[in-house]
Amino acid sequence: MTQTGSTLSPAQTQHAGSAALIALDWGTTSLRAYLFDANGAVLDTRASTAGIMNLPRPAAEGGFDAAFDSAVGGWLDRAPGLPVIAAGMVGSAQGWKEAPYVNAPASAEALVDGIVRVQTARGVTLHIVPGVLQNGELPNVMRGEETQIFGALACAQASAAGSGALIGLPGTHAKWVMVRDARIERFDTFMTGEVFAALSEHTILGRTMTTPDRPDTGAFLRGVRVARDEGKAGMLATIFSTRTLGLTGQLTREQQPDYLSGLLIGHELSGLEASLAQQQTTLAGTALKLIGNEALCERYRLALAQFGCQQAELVKEATERGLWRIATQAGLVGETPGAAQAAQKAS
Amino acid sequence: MTQTGSTLSPAQTQHAGSAALIALDWGTTSLRAYLFDANGAVLDTRASTAGIMNLPRPAAEGGFDAAFDSAVGGWLDRAPGLPVIAAGMVGSAQGWKEAPYVNAPASAEALVDGIVRVQTARGVTLHIVPGVLQNGELPNVMRGEETQIFGALACAQASAAGSGALIGLPGTHAKWVMVRDARIERFDTFMTGEVFAALSEHTILGRTMTTPDRPDTGAFLRGVRVARDEGKAGMLATIFSTRTLGLTGQLTREQQPDYLSGLLIGHELSGLEASLAQQQTTLAGTALKLIGNEALCERYRLALAQFGCQQAELVKEATERGLWRIATQAGLVGETPGAAQAAQKAS
Repeated sequence: MTQTGSTLSPAQTQHAGSAALIALDWGTTSLRAYLFDANGAVLDTRASTAGIMNLPRPAAEGGFDAAFDSAVGGWLDRAPGLPVIAAGMVGSAQGWKEAPYVNAPASAEALVDGIVRVQTARGVTLHIVPGVLQNGELPNVMRGEETQIFGALACAQASAAGSGALIGLPGTHAKWVMVRDARIERFDTFMTGEVFAALSEHTILGRTMTTPDRPDTGAFLRGVRVARDEGKAGMLATIFSTRTLGLTGQLTREQQPDYLSGLLIGHELSGLEASLAQQQTTLAGTALKLIGNEALCERYRLALAQFGCQQAELVKEATERGLWRIATQAGLVGETPGAAQAAQKAS
Repeated sequence: MTQTGSTLSPAQTQHAGSAALIALDWGTTSLRAYLFDANGAVLDTRASTAGIMNLPRPAAEGGFDAAFDSAVGGWLDRAPGLPVIAAGMVGSAQGWKEAPYVNAPASAEALVDGIVRVQTARGVTLHIVPGVLQNGELPNVMRGEETQIFGALACAQASAAGSGALIGLPGTHAKWVMVRDARIERFDTFMTGEVFAALSEHTILGRTMTTPDRPDTGAFLRGVRVARDEGKAGMLATIFSTRTLGLTGQLTREQQPDYLSGLLIGHELSGLEASLAQQQTTLAGTALKLIGNEALCERYRLALAQFGCQQAELVKEATERGLWRIATQAGLVGETPGAAQAAQKAS
């Protein structure tokens, strides 16, 4: 994604006349903004670190408005009437305005029905997409990923119907989501990324580790296989081998971070496999898509292959496609290019 | 254990004449010293925070000698010829002198054979008990626990023979050790205590937690049962429920620490159960002893009962009993009270 300043380039200025939608992916630690034309093409983007936990000033002192203006004020100055939509933690209890969770199974229509509106200081209405809640013994929640998922489905409508598709969103809190009949049916959250950071930085395991210059794929895959084949005692037991394989000269300091990463992702996929088994399916037998950072998704593809899953397709631009799709479905922009252009001209 | 200063009480001074052994439990963050009489009774104790990673000055500048003198110098001033034994991380590569691991299965005799000697600045010989290594795909190591285990066996010799006994040592790095025919046969290490601390202090889970005034047993057992019954997706998945049960109003901030603790201990015991299954046994069908902090062992007893194990006996003073036993077996003190007293008088 391009990280741009506040000035449009000449090429972008040329397009600015046809801007039709502003969409925000507003998370805990970052804010990304997209300017769309009436055909759903991205004209311009903004990125900042003004996540909801990192606002330029406290929320009570107008922090949300300040972050909003700083990100998209320029666009709105040029085209004051643009509709604005946002997804992510901005709709949480700690966000600008809480958009109550929609219950799973959740369709795009249900998300649209759950949109909450907040009036900004400059008089613009911000439309906030709700997250999804799966209730039960172990409740699960998502905010932002629901939008990415419908973005991924937008470019592969076929696979959403019928037998279902499994979508993985690796990261700090990795999500694995089963989609069936164009609805988010059920999902699990694995705290893999955050646990890796906590173990590496705040336990004895970090003391013998050195970050390598480049990832060590061999050490990573060894970790994945140990979790898969020797992981019966669980992650609390296997992670100690990061240290003991070092103590016994079987793993260098530089190999330990990738080995631990492989162990954790291996345990995640073993856990996912067990979860899928309860739904009478397997990783090897499921059409699978990945959304997220490309390098991380590539690690997951390598790990998934160890579980017999050779086809994990990386879906790009899921966030912006999802925001566009929900905005369209909510009537914020015309459903067809023609209609959108007509709406633009009429306004 | 009594934490005493450097002056002996009148009663202790009275006993000091019959002192026969100094024994140290010298770990990473603490140093505990015991003064024994010739019958193996503890005359006095010292405790300090001068673990090997917390010496009063750097190791290269005599830090080990300084910690040693500060802990037991007074005893040695009064009885210069006392034999001295130590177990724990003091024998690690980062310790005073490395005592190479003895391979499992390991008997008390093997530990005695592996004792390493270091000469202190004051001319005393410190005898360091080696740790135990279990090699394999997932190597395991212990330092200090081997001594506690032989201490526990010293007071229950019968159960060590024949069918075997399972000994649990809850803590930062919990160990579960199968003992058969008076040998440490195999063991697992679960990083439960350290992972709990890392998750509580360095992940999003800590943000919604408040430490309660007193432990909430109900929340703890709920966590244990969730790990046991709903834990198939693994710990990386279940721990997120600490947050989501809070978000959905099913767990107060004060209940979350005990719930998370229950989850982790539940996953540890599920993993242990899976590990035991590979040895054709179960938690419910195994004689079981616990060594460690009494309050923590009580939590484990509650958790073990959820796995059908009703008989988990707490072994007290395992550390001092183990140090005495190995010193005796090494000939540092007389094997029988009579012989020891004779040796005392002869010296």
